[in-house]
Amino acid sequence: PRPRLYPCHKTQDSLLSSASGYNKYRGILNWCVVMLVLSNARLFLENLLKHGILVDPIQVVSLFLNDPYRWPAACLVIVANVFVLVALYTERQLSKGSFSERLGFLVHAINMGVLITFPAAVVLLLPSVTPVGGASALSIYTILFLKLYSYKDVNLWCRELSSIKVKKLSRSLSCPSQQHWSGGDCKVSYPGNLTIRDMYYFVFAPTLCYELNFPRSPSVRVGFLLRRLCEMLFFTQVLVALAQQWMVPIIRSSMKPLEVPNHLLWLMFFYWFFHSSMNFTAELLRFGDRQFYNDWWNSETVTYFWQNWNIPVHKWCLRHFYKPLLRRGFSKKVSQSAVFFLSAFFHEYLVSVPLRMFRLWAFMGMMAQIPLAWFVGRFLRGNYGNAAVWISIIIGQPFAVLMYVHDYYVLHHRQEVDGL
Amino acid sequence: PRPRLYPCHKTQDSLLSSASGYNKYRGILNWCVVMLVLSNARLFLENLLKHGILVDPIQVVSLFLNDPYRWPAACLVIVANVFVLVALYTERQLSKGSFSERLGFLVHAINMGVLITFPAAVVLLLPSVTPVGGASALSIYTILFLKLYSYKDVNLWCRELSSIKVKKLSRSLSCPSQQHWSGGDCKVSYPGNLTIRDMYYFVFAPTLCYELNFPRSPSVRVGFLLRRLCEMLFFTQVLVALAQQWMVPIIRSSMKPLEVPNHLLWLMFFYWFFHSSMNFTAELLRFGDRQFYNDWWNSETVTYFWQNWNIPVHKWCLRHFYKPLLRRGFSKKVSQSAVFFLSAFFHEYLVSVPLRMFRLWAFMGMMAQIPLAWFVGRFLRGNYGNAAVWISIIIGQPFAVLMYVHDYYVLHHRQEVDGL
Repeated sequence: PRPRLYPCHKTQDSLLSSASGYNKYRGILNWCVVMLVLSNARLFLENLLKHGILVDPIQVVSLFLNDPYRWPAACLVIVANVFVLVALYTERQLSKGSFSERLGFLVHAINMGVLITFPAAVVLLLPSVTPVGGASALSIYTILFLKLYSYKDVNLWCRELSSIKVKKLSRSLSCPSQQHWSGGDCKVSYPGNLTIRDMYYFVFAPTLCYELNFPRSPSVRVGFLLRRLCEMLFFTQVLVALAQQWMVPIIRSSMKPLEVPNHLLWLMFFYWFFHSSMNFTAELLRFGDRQFYNDWWNSETVTYFWQNWNIPVHKWCLRHFYKPLLRRGFSKKVSQSAVFFLSAFFHEYLVSVPLRMFRLWAFMGMMAQIPLAWFVGRFLRGNYGNAAVWISIIIGQPFAVLMYVHDYYVLHHRQEVDGL
Repeated sequence: PRPRLYPCHKTQDSLLSSASGYNKYRGILNWCVVMLVLSNARLFLENLLKHGILVDPIQVVSLFLNDPYRWPAACLVIVANVFVLVALYTERQLSKGSFSERLGFLVHAINMGVLITFPAAVVLLLPSVTPVGGASALSIYTILFLKLYSYKDVNLWCRELSSIKVKKLSRSLSCPSQQHWSGGDCKVSYPGNLTIRDMYYFVFAPTLCYELNFPRSPSVRVGFLLRRLCEMLFFTQVLVALAQQWMVPIIRSSMKPLEVPNHLLWLMFFYWFFHSSMNFTAELLRFGDRQFYNDWWNSETVTYFWQNWNIPVHKWCLRHFYKPLLRRGFSKKVSQSAVFFLSAFFHEYLVSVPLRMFRLWAFMGMMAQIPLAWFVGRFLRGNYGNAAVWISIIIGQPFAVLMYVHDYYVLHHRQEVDGL
């Protein structure tokens, strides 16, 4: 071989130096999962061998129901169908011209007003509704409220489009070109979408924003479905087990606001709900858009976190609240604050009503995000900003939760003492 | 505004689905750091308030020295200079033609043979050398062995090049074009590099592969230097503290081969040595090539891990052992196995000699990587492969270490019992 010098060095940064701009750390995520499983596996086995299965499914049911023969929360959920059908009926009348736009708006307003106040009244007045049952029912009603609001808006937009003379244009606009269609599905145009089938597809679809033609995946992948189902069952089990064997004793015995478990529960809940459950539902319904969350773990500002951890709600706020406000001439700042107010209201609604305590902690927690966002955005950048966001999640969130838990236990303990 | 439909969905995968191909998780790394700091901060404060500073610097020194007035390991390191000077002297004689190539090879062979056997003999025969002191001295000698081997090879290649008639070509080849030069430095060509200054720059530079003209960074960044120095001090403190307050009692009281601490110690050692210390040295010496490790955390095969976690050694093996073997006509498989054998030999050398026990655990641990690599490569792919690599690191490594620790304690305990 010809003599050579085999040079082997060139100027370059280490990957972990921030200057390198390297950010591919999928392996670290796997490491976290492996560590989580390994460090729990031995504890799990030891615990199982020692105590048997402590997790009590009956006790879980009792979280939802006080009296197994009366299911107030479940009844509430069944009643919710009435509001769905009223919204559909109103839209049909509007499309036929039987209702004027004004009457239609009035019916929708009343329907949604009742939709949001009626379950709250039931939960507040009926003593047989448990906090967990009440919170579940109210969550479902809130989701439905957002969905029906979107349904009303989109159908209104369709009528506005149809009323324009250029009918051809409206038809091509109703099927935006960036959507991908699988072979079998044919596109639906305006009055054709007002069917029970279409309505219930939207009600069950993992989105809050109505569209006449959702992007659909070509088929149901059974393997994908089963993996998501296994994850759902696994995390349900882990969440309930952790809550029963770990959280409740800690809260009862001592109040430690900086406990990490709460944060881990939230992370697992996030994965369980936003990845496993929503992907499961989407796969079943062949719903194509699986962007239920974005890369909030890399957030370098508080604003980025709130815009990316819950995409369905973020999309809804943008499409049906923030942008309409802008179109009506409100400034960006006012519109943004209005979004935070709305979000704060629903956070408070979903916590205060089921617990039957009005403390405004959730509301203030949401509103405190505004100065926090300003502080982090002003003083911290890059990985320091990201660390600050993580710290605010790790410390702030369990703190807010604990305020309620603390007040709830104090309240009920005092009642027990009074009752003696 | 003109009526529109505001479409907001398109077909896409969730980021955490493996199908999305998304792998930017820098935030997860920050999360690990935040969790590490937060979960240790309270413990650290409590411990400090309760016990004061338990970490004993004198005890650390005693790890290296039995008798503070005799420093055998330090003396060994000072003696190492002799071998460096012999190598430089030999190369000078070779360049002048005073030594024939054959005589030069012989002197180098003897020099390096003594370099690797002499410290081992001292450590084995001198009872005042502690295991930690012995391991440190042997590590330094091993690094020097690899460096001098590379020095000898490169100077030989230079002579081979000069001996070719086309002298112009040789000069352009001695300064490869892919290297970047800062303004002030001028390139060195063959016999001009045989100086004490050049030799000691190579001895201290964070690389094992000699080059006549290393890529240099334009200046010493003081901020970068101080950040790395702080990290070095912090991790030194943490490593020593963990070893003193945590590891030793656990090993003494009970043998738990699956303890996670060992793995965390290794991770911290990795960061301390390969990122903080090597970058610190490189910054001081304006050494441009900072690739001391690659993205081994994403390894999906065992081979990828071994090729990427320790780049200086990997580079040396490739340039001075694996490729020369290939050039001499050996097959890929034989050459690869030879690299593993060499690596296994040095692992054993660095562990057995300082502990004065020949158990072959390290040797077998390295050799066991070959079937493991086959198994993981054959049956596991993607994130599953990555998880398997992590598990083999988390479980395998502490297991090997523990075999030695166990044997060492048993041996010394028996000696103490015999001594009574």
